[in-house]
Amino acid sequence: MSKQTLRQRFGVRIRQLREEAGYSQEAFADACGYARSYMSRIERGLGNPSLDAIEVLANALQVEVAELFPITGSR
Amino acid sequence: MSKQTLRQRFGVRIRQLREEAGYSQEAFADACGYARSYMSRIERGLGNPSLDAIEVLANALQVEVAELFPITGSR
Repeated sequence: MSKQTLRQRFGVRIRQLREEAGYSQEAFADACGYARSYMSRIERGLGNPSLDAIEVLANALQVEVAELFPITGSR
Repeated sequence: MSKQTLRQRFGVRIRQLREEAGYSQEAFADACGYARSYMSRIERGLGNPSLDAIEVLANALQVEVAELFPITGSR
């Protein structure tokens, strides 16, 4: 089992919550005020969003920031 | 009671965990490979660390990333 990077785990989580909220990637990018290409990079684990950007994502998803970071149990 | 920004809450949390771990600000900055001035900005809620930087902080503190984001209960 390969270890995912934090970027990858974050991207998977954003996608999961975005889909649960019923957003297409494009609609969610619009809701955040981001380009769809940037949202795609985040969901694929390629983006390196800042704390401010992470807050925008959490607000758009109406979740606490902590909920964007699942506990890995890897420690 | 004024609402703190996420940057401010994050900075307070980093300082709290850093002190609990027994680090001076300078020693903790060194452990992260960051300049002390950058660490000071983060702790004062002025810095806007990226996801990669947040991971460095969590690793240096030996905590899960989620632990850096206390639930505010404000929703």
